[in-house]
Amino acid sequence: MAPEALYQELVQLAREEALLGSVAATLEWDTETYLPPGGVENRGRQMAILAGLLHERAVDPRRAELLEALAGSSLCADPAAVEAVNVRELRKGYERERKVPRELVEELAEETTVASAAWAEARGRRSFAAFAPHLERVVALKRAEAECLAAGGDAYDALLDDHEEGLSMARLDAIVTPLRAGLAALLDRIQGARRPPAPLGGGDYPVAAQRSLATWLAERMGFDGARGRLDAAVHPFTTGLGPGDCRITARWDPTDLSVGLFAVMHEVGHGLYEQGLDPSQWGLPAGEQVSDGLDESQARLWENVVGRSPAFWRFLWPELAARFPALAGADAGAVHRAMNRVEPSFIRVSADEVTYHLHIAVRIDLERSLLRGELRVNDLPAAWAEAYRSTLGIVPPDDTLGCLQDGHWAAGLIGYFASYTLGDVYAAELTRAAERTLGSLEPAFGRGDLAPLRSWLTEHIHRHGCRFGPIELVARATGALPSAASLLARLERVVEGTIA
Amino acid sequence: MAPEALYQELVQLAREEALLGSVAATLEWDTETYLPPGGVENRGRQMAILAGLLHERAVDPRRAELLEALAGSSLCADPAAVEAVNVRELRKGYERERKVPRELVEELAEETTVASAAWAEARGRRSFAAFAPHLERVVALKRAEAECLAAGGDAYDALLDDHEEGLSMARLDAIVTPLRAGLAALLDRIQGARRPPAPLGGGDYPVAAQRSLATWLAERMGFDGARGRLDAAVHPFTTGLGPGDCRITARWDPTDLSVGLFAVMHEVGHGLYEQGLDPSQWGLPAGEQVSDGLDESQARLWENVVGRSPAFWRFLWPELAARFPALAGADAGAVHRAMNRVEPSFIRVSADEVTYHLHIAVRIDLERSLLRGELRVNDLPAAWAEAYRSTLGIVPPDDTLGCLQDGHWAAGLIGYFASYTLGDVYAAELTRAAERTLGSLEPAFGRGDLAPLRSWLTEHIHRHGCRFGPIELVARATGALPSAASLLARLERVVEGTIA
Repeated sequence: MAPEALYQELVQLAREEALLGSVAATLEWDTETYLPPGGVENRGRQMAILAGLLHERAVDPRRAELLEALAGSSLCADPAAVEAVNVRELRKGYERERKVPRELVEELAEETTVASAAWAEARGRRSFAAFAPHLERVVALKRAEAECLAAGGDAYDALLDDHEEGLSMARLDAIVTPLRAGLAALLDRIQGARRPPAPLGGGDYPVAAQRSLATWLAERMGFDGARGRLDAAVHPFTTGLGPGDCRITARWDPTDLSVGLFAVMHEVGHGLYEQGLDPSQWGLPAGEQVSDGLDESQARLWENVVGRSPAFWRFLWPELAARFPALAGADAGAVHRAMNRVEPSFIRVSADEVTYHLHIAVRIDLERSLLRGELRVNDLPAAWAEAYRSTLGIVPPDDTLGCLQDGHWAAGLIGYFASYTLGDVYAAELTRAAERTLGSLEPAFGRGDLAPLRSWLTEHIHRHGCRFGPIELVARATGALPSAASLLARLERVVEGTIA
Repeated sequence: MAPEALYQELVQLAREEALLGSVAATLEWDTETYLPPGGVENRGRQMAILAGLLHERAVDPRRAELLEALAGSSLCADPAAVEAVNVRELRKGYERERKVPRELVEELAEETTVASAAWAEARGRRSFAAFAPHLERVVALKRAEAECLAAGGDAYDALLDDHEEGLSMARLDAIVTPLRAGLAALLDRIQGARRPPAPLGGGDYPVAAQRSLATWLAERMGFDGARGRLDAAVHPFTTGLGPGDCRITARWDPTDLSVGLFAVMHEVGHGLYEQGLDPSQWGLPAGEQVSDGLDESQARLWENVVGRSPAFWRFLWPELAARFPALAGADAGAVHRAMNRVEPSFIRVSADEVTYHLHIAVRIDLERSLLRGELRVNDLPAAWAEAYRSTLGIVPPDDTLGCLQDGHWAAGLIGYFASYTLGDVYAAELTRAAERTLGSLEPAFGRGDLAPLRSWLTEHIHRHGCRFGPIELVARATGALPSAASLLARLERVVEGTIA
């Protein structure tokens, strides 16, 4: 058979798997948005059967034959050609999948579904005890999976690599050690400095009005509502359910406008990446997000670089004032300064940009200890409290403000948190590179014109799919290997704004 | 192998298929509630791949072996034993499935998904032309399917039987011919009679308040909200997505309270049947609705026998008056009479109980002609107008009030409409039988106490699953074969109420 015919067969196999994957993603979305409590158990079984079918396709021996035959073929001679990219990346996927037994894949799918629902309920009831047995099982299953993937190497490194190709604890340290040193210095500087007043909390912001603002804002940011939608979820997330169907979720707090506002900008950032992918390559690596770190870079960039900039805030303010009577008489500049206040707090997703990475550091340390069995699940609340005390100088009053705040571990996302810090590192580098080409973004932000930035990101990041690895993709977009320097420079400006 | 072991293997195969079926049902629900327009095409492909996987399981040769071995075994000696019921009904399902080729099953799943979305859009735009090519394809595919099922017999009969086992045009005529004669006589009687004033239309009924009423009403009717939920859909429907997850949908009109009110009572009727099934038999025929006619009987019973009764209305009125200021000063009795007014109208779902069956008659005639190729799809609007003129004496001013009002044909539900008339026939018989045991239901309705009726229905209908065929099930519950007599007696009382 000609390589072209083999390639078409491979594409068809991959797309069929992607289609089934999009079925599973639809059910996952439903689980987090609308599933009634009584349906959780069956949902777990549904996820298990789908995971099994997906695994079966992923390790199909015919796929291995096709990959083998194509790897050395003329179609893959140019490594940057889309065919070569897809063959290379599908091969990695095949190698990954066949390391993990089908039963484990099915168990993980079922258990993480049930555990996620248990987490949401336990969080509502502020009861870690109700969640602990579920987390115990998820950690055990993730350990088993990590050992399969590590094949003798370090289990936690295997999970880091699973989210960000090439990442290990050593490589992560090389980026975050200077970052943390810089953060410590910044925090020292603001000790005792005058704090601006409280941000957008304590007001009366009807959820219906916040949802309507969210729809307006998503459209303004360039999210195509005809090819996606926006719903509520306990833990906001974004997911692509197939070409033309990108689902964003957010959480709204009727007393604090900032919670929903930044959740929406964050998730729309993910959504713009999804909607910016090459539709002709849907279901293939060339049409997929390259890594979780890059995905978070897009989310954090829109949330922080755009959402917290003084210029965009000046644009947004009249819109907010018109929609929320509670803001009457408030001063836009004062609210903006308050919103960017740097101060240790309990909740990661509403933390300021500086302390945010200390929240991440706590999670990385703890999840690594859990995975290695050095920390028992039952001891997690105490370990969490101690880590917050030593890292941020505060102790959460209950587990909802502590170790129950994130749904990641319940969902099996151990090794994921590093993506947020990497995301901010990438986002700062990408912003600097975009400004080198486009000039300062502030004037456009001030007009609410976000198209130039969005187009630049689509051209330099979204459209490439998995054509390059994450580090190489960023390096190509910026002209240099990513480091923490740009992020630290940005955070320094944030802190100066706070003190001033 | 012992029959018990074979039976367990069969149960496992059937439940795996049911589990995948519940995945497909979840996607169908999403298609009708939340799917963005851009996702329709991929959704069609998702439905096709799932339909293919389901078909593959349904015709699995191992299933045939098990069914064969079990049919003559000791386990099936007592035909009323649950094992015998499941073997018998699974065998029917197997025989049905293997008549239809996999490609046709997949095409139907894809095309009906896309056509349903096209229908909803065309309905909104009042443009039959936009929908016609889709309907053309669905009719052609349904004709192909019907010919497979009919195996040389009448194609339309095969579709009737597919929804109601044992039904044919001849058997349907035996029930509906006396019914239609009775209806004609009733309509003659009210010609020229004084009409009560307009019902609950033309007011201001905020949708949020209607949704809150719907939740209250569903709970009052005994629907378990922890094992289900309520959403909005263009064409209301109810679906079971697995044990503990029954989804109801409704449509609300901000100017007409009756639209949402009766849609909710109808759909909750379906939901109570779903929630009343034997959970230990989930995924097996003994734990499934026996036929679409019985399913509609439950819906129509709650909508009409309960919802339109004077006693329940007296109970409901203070609740309505408290929730909707637009009702201030209205007289409960007058509104009730207006609500039950008998008068030809365009829309089936809001038709009075008497003319309702003429709407159904029009659809049965037209869909049969479409299936037989005697009526071309492009000629449907004209044929519809002519049928309404000759049957109800009115001509719809546009296709949204005409042949675009129902989503059934787009969804491939040709042969389904008979279920509504059968449902009313069954409902009237069941009501009479329930009252023989429980005494008049009116006093309990007047207190809003719906538990006695619900329990009676659960005991005599819901819990039996497919243990008996639909006619036998009704006959066992009522003591006689169902006929149109009870329904005609009921409609006579409705008309008398109108004239009085």
